[in-house]
Amino acid sequence: MRHTAFTVALASSSKFQHRSFSTSPNSSAGFDFINYMTNKAKSINKALNDAVPLCTTNPFAHKIHEAMRYSLLSNGKRVSPVLCLASCELVGGQESTAMPAACAVEMLHASSLIQDDLPCMDDESLRRGKPTNHKIYGEDIAILASDAFLALAVTHTLSATATSENVPPSRVSRAVFEMMRAVGTDGLVAGQAADLEKMVSEEREERLLERLEFIHVHKTAALLEAAAVMGGILGGGCDEEIERLRSYARCVGLMYQVVDDVLDVTKSSEELGKTAGKDLIAGKLTYPRVMGVEKSREYAVKLNGEALEHLRGFDSDKVVPLVSLADYIVKRQK
Amino acid sequence: MRHTAFTVALASSSKFQHRSFSTSPNSSAGFDFINYMTNKAKSINKALNDAVPLCTTNPFAHKIHEAMRYSLLSNGKRVSPVLCLASCELVGGQESTAMPAACAVEMLHASSLIQDDLPCMDDESLRRGKPTNHKIYGEDIAILASDAFLALAVTHTLSATATSENVPPSRVSRAVFEMMRAVGTDGLVAGQAADLEKMVSEEREERLLERLEFIHVHKTAALLEAAAVMGGILGGGCDEEIERLRSYARCVGLMYQVVDDVLDVTKSSEELGKTAGKDLIAGKLTYPRVMGVEKSREYAVKLNGEALEHLRGFDSDKVVPLVSLADYIVKRQK
Repeated sequence: MRHTAFTVALASSSKFQHRSFSTSPNSSAGFDFINYMTNKAKSINKALNDAVPLCTTNPFAHKIHEAMRYSLLSNGKRVSPVLCLASCELVGGQESTAMPAACAVEMLHASSLIQDDLPCMDDESLRRGKPTNHKIYGEDIAILASDAFLALAVTHTLSATATSENVPPSRVSRAVFEMMRAVGTDGLVAGQAADLEKMVSEEREERLLERLEFIHVHKTAALLEAAAVMGGILGGGCDEEIERLRSYARCVGLMYQVVDDVLDVTKSSEELGKTAGKDLIAGKLTYPRVMGVEKSREYAVKLNGEALEHLRGFDSDKVVPLVSLADYIVKRQK
Repeated sequence: MRHTAFTVALASSSKFQHRSFSTSPNSSAGFDFINYMTNKAKSINKALNDAVPLCTTNPFAHKIHEAMRYSLLSNGKRVSPVLCLASCELVGGQESTAMPAACAVEMLHASSLIQDDLPCMDDESLRRGKPTNHKIYGEDIAILASDAFLALAVTHTLSATATSENVPPSRVSRAVFEMMRAVGTDGLVAGQAADLEKMVSEEREERLLERLEFIHVHKTAALLEAAAVMGGILGGGCDEEIERLRSYARCVGLMYQVVDDVLDVTKSSEELGKTAGKDLIAGKLTYPRVMGVEKSREYAVKLNGEALEHLRGFDSDKVVPLVSLADYIVKRQK
């Protein structure tokens, strides 16, 4: 299948950098996914910019907000917030209704990346081609910024959604519950704890695969699940629709990670825009390491098929953005 | 005034350690504050124990829960959760209605203590006579445990309070909003950022006092405010009652810190059960340093008076526990 690289501006403002998407054009029957993704990312970046203002009255909050903005407004793919908005619209909601939740999900993502990069975790100096947060602001401020993201994710969702007349308070609470469940020991925290465990060379393949799935279901998929489920809840979806979105997002999250692992061993640093082969050097447990590159690719395609299965039953026109998003993720080249 | 040291068991179970309260007995017209505090702490410790179970199915969550329990079930004073429960009862609510929020507030407290002790923050090896969390579990797990506390504080309050028929969902959301506002750049995070700034010797006294108040209003008082306000909201209090509780708690929080600073320079390590004089050694900005010991003591008494002023207007019988709590804090000897 032929892939074309598109360079798209993710935001109108010059302070947001450009990034290139690589996907097959006009996937899903003429749907212009790149245009869709660009427009969504533009709205998301504007909302994120407004959600973490540089307040001048409080110098300490100012310092933390500066560190938060450094990580939040960097060159991210915005996959989770787009998934949140698309899920809301799929069940009949407005983009604006889910926007605070979409921003919150990106804040959780930024928080987890700041922590992953700390010296006591993965000890990374670079992230998306820029020095990591603690390299610029120090470990102490980086940790405080990551806390502030968790707090703001909750307060922003609660306060911004409370002003929306469309969403009953019980749905807002349910959405926040799902979001914070994805952070704790049912999600990110457990995934990161599993990821920190060194790979034991004597472990059998089956056992390694089990741990690998655990890491990524908790670390990557949990956040995407929360994004989709929050969109579904706030958009007014019924329980069945919300659970379908959850299953779809879990497959997409796992697939995202399988593809990431494959790219790490098959692409150059130049092609990726980040250090290639670093998982191998760090002795990380990855899909290619456990099942080889070819089987990993097959597994990603299988997960894509499963993701699409979970979308059956939704309106075939309305579902196109989510079909295209999965397609983009499985085919991405960086 | 004469002080008597009481040694009370904070919980029935032998796994909870004993701690001694030092206060004047039968303060506030025959009210047995020690008995009140002991009973409240017993219920709180039981609820905390149940809120963070040692799950066996997920080994990574198990590891994090172990680290969380190490800090959460240690020998704390439980001032914030008692304040939460007492505030709820003052406005006519049941203890059980505010218990999830009281536990959540203690989780936030535990989370902030774990972080404060990290090598990149205050670099402490001991807390309440035991090795600090990161000394036992490593920095990585300690940071993850502190995140997990923030997440659990939200999910526990939402899920446990949602089952209560007495509290409308909008009040639950409002309580969670107040709680997480106390964590972010309007609260703990900003206070800790200010605390990390080294004291500049040329700063004028007035300027230093301003920064000191900022630190403690954000670091200590914000959490106590959230505790009282959450209790008031969940107990069904009106806006005026909730705001009075907020003002009371802010005075008590600041007073707590003034007393803490005085004890650090006037008591021995043996009397305190922790290293005395460490603020001085660390070059920390403290009240005795800025205004001297005597003026600091006077300031604490003044804050106590202000705290009691904010309680006027409440039923004079029902308000006794909060009057006694302020009394206990201003007179504590450790």
